[in-house]
Amino acid sequence: MTDQPLFADEKSRASQWFSDLRDQIVAAFEGLEDSQVTGPHAEIPAGRFEVTPTVRTGPEGEDHGGGKMSVMRGGRVFEKVGVNISTVWGTLGERAQKAMAARGVPGMDQDPRFWASGISLVAHMQNPQTPAVHMNTRMFWTPGAWWFGGGADLNPCIEYEDDTAEFHAALQAACDAHDESYYPRFKAWADEYFYIPHRNRARGVGGIFYDDLNTGNWEEDFAFTQDVGRAFLKAFLPVTEKRRNQPWTDADRETQFVHRGLYAEYNLVYDRGTKFGLETGHNPDAVLMSLPPIAKWV
Amino acid sequence: MTDQPLFADEKSRASQWFSDLRDQIVAAFEGLEDSQVTGPHAEIPAGRFEVTPTVRTGPEGEDHGGGKMSVMRGGRVFEKVGVNISTVWGTLGERAQKAMAARGVPGMDQDPRFWASGISLVAHMQNPQTPAVHMNTRMFWTPGAWWFGGGADLNPCIEYEDDTAEFHAALQAACDAHDESYYPRFKAWADEYFYIPHRNRARGVGGIFYDDLNTGNWEEDFAFTQDVGRAFLKAFLPVTEKRRNQPWTDADRETQFVHRGLYAEYNLVYDRGTKFGLETGHNPDAVLMSLPPIAKWV
Repeated sequence: MTDQPLFADEKSRASQWFSDLRDQIVAAFEGLEDSQVTGPHAEIPAGRFEVTPTVRTGPEGEDHGGGKMSVMRGGRVFEKVGVNISTVWGTLGERAQKAMAARGVPGMDQDPRFWASGISLVAHMQNPQTPAVHMNTRMFWTPGAWWFGGGADLNPCIEYEDDTAEFHAALQAACDAHDESYYPRFKAWADEYFYIPHRNRARGVGGIFYDDLNTGNWEEDFAFTQDVGRAFLKAFLPVTEKRRNQPWTDADRETQFVHRGLYAEYNLVYDRGTKFGLETGHNPDAVLMSLPPIAKWV
Repeated sequence: MTDQPLFADEKSRASQWFSDLRDQIVAAFEGLEDSQVTGPHAEIPAGRFEVTPTVRTGPEGEDHGGGKMSVMRGGRVFEKVGVNISTVWGTLGERAQKAMAARGVPGMDQDPRFWASGISLVAHMQNPQTPAVHMNTRMFWTPGAWWFGGGADLNPCIEYEDDTAEFHAALQAACDAHDESYYPRFKAWADEYFYIPHRNRARGVGGIFYDDLNTGNWEEDFAFTQDVGRAFLKAFLPVTEKRRNQPWTDADRETQFVHRGLYAEYNLVYDRGTKFGLETGHNPDAVLMSLPPIAKWV
């Protein structure tokens, strides 16, 4: 906690970091598009992100922040990838306020102001050998509390044990550098969080998930959240490099479309961020940017 | 209400009717598949329903009823259509029991037994000129109450005012034969129910929706529910006959795929039947039979 209730410097640094991380990811993904691609997708020109500012206004039209939605569609490596950053503030609605109070956020019952900044990313790939991926990190602030949360998980439609191991190893290295209890806890949390109860299965091969992270040391928790963002690129890029030119069959592509149906089910039925976004009247295109370009239900 | 608390005869007649209606619909839809089709889909053999029994068991494996799932995939008129019937019974879980009690169902707080029987249908069409459609009717019984519910709504991706008018007129005729207040009330209820708040739009061009229907006269309410089922065929078949061979463009087909994304969003985020089915551990394939064969999010 802090003796600076408005926490202006920390907010500014966190918000700047999510913006910097977004720039690194966008550059890395456009770099992948520029790399040599073989197979049917080689004919597609290298994809580029389209960037749209997002604006959040209050009930009287006042400035409640905003962000930037960056979407690449129909690239030759990425079929659809969205990277959102936003820094928003305001007063929580009654429902969200009660939910926060129920989670034990101090002071929420007296003062429902909030500030939140974060980055979220979902990538759906052209080649079904290349796994889809999700990453999100954020800082949340209220007058009585602050915390970090986030995570990353891999969603291959064709699973390779070595890819899963490499992805987890990169995330574990980032966790272990901060606290050796983090990776086992946050891996188990991801296994629980990215689960589809009605299908009785995980949506992918897991990763890490954490929320409500406040050790009492903002610098340390911020440094950890930065390292999770950096680890995402270290975890995802090598797997993509390895698989993006691997041959696939029409049957593999069908498997990918059906697997994406699971992803849509998860996001629309269970995902907390999606629910929060839809209920609080965010731009639906930004909230649902995570949905797959094509999905099938057979 | 009744002096026969178990209501055995009424349950049996309702259940039999939903089964008869299912047979009529399956025959009519296979008949449409046998009719002359022109254009690219003419090459596709006439589709047929695959029928799978569904079984609901209690926690100790005891018989809690079941039904029949009938799905036609890849026909030349219907790209995917599912018709489910089921007759199930048991004890409501705590959450469902509380929700029923909150809705004012008498006796629910003392005795959470229930019995339910119904039919539900969703059709996604090959030709984007032909509207998707949904129909559902059901009877629900608890020791202290019984009621009917249901409805039908049309979901064209390309809207034609005359189709909308004909569909509504057929439903209105069925309503007016029973009570002239029904159509205006049930049309308004459908407009409210089949609405996608986060998109700020209706999912289609409406129809009727009703629930908790108990006028005190079971015979009359049962007769109305039968007429809604019959009216569905009168409302839907002529529109399909008219549109199924109308030329379309690749752009129309893309519009259809994107429009189906809205349908998936509605069903996964808002639809009460889907939520109830997923939360109470029904077979997910039967519950999610309504999802489109292909959907796109651009």
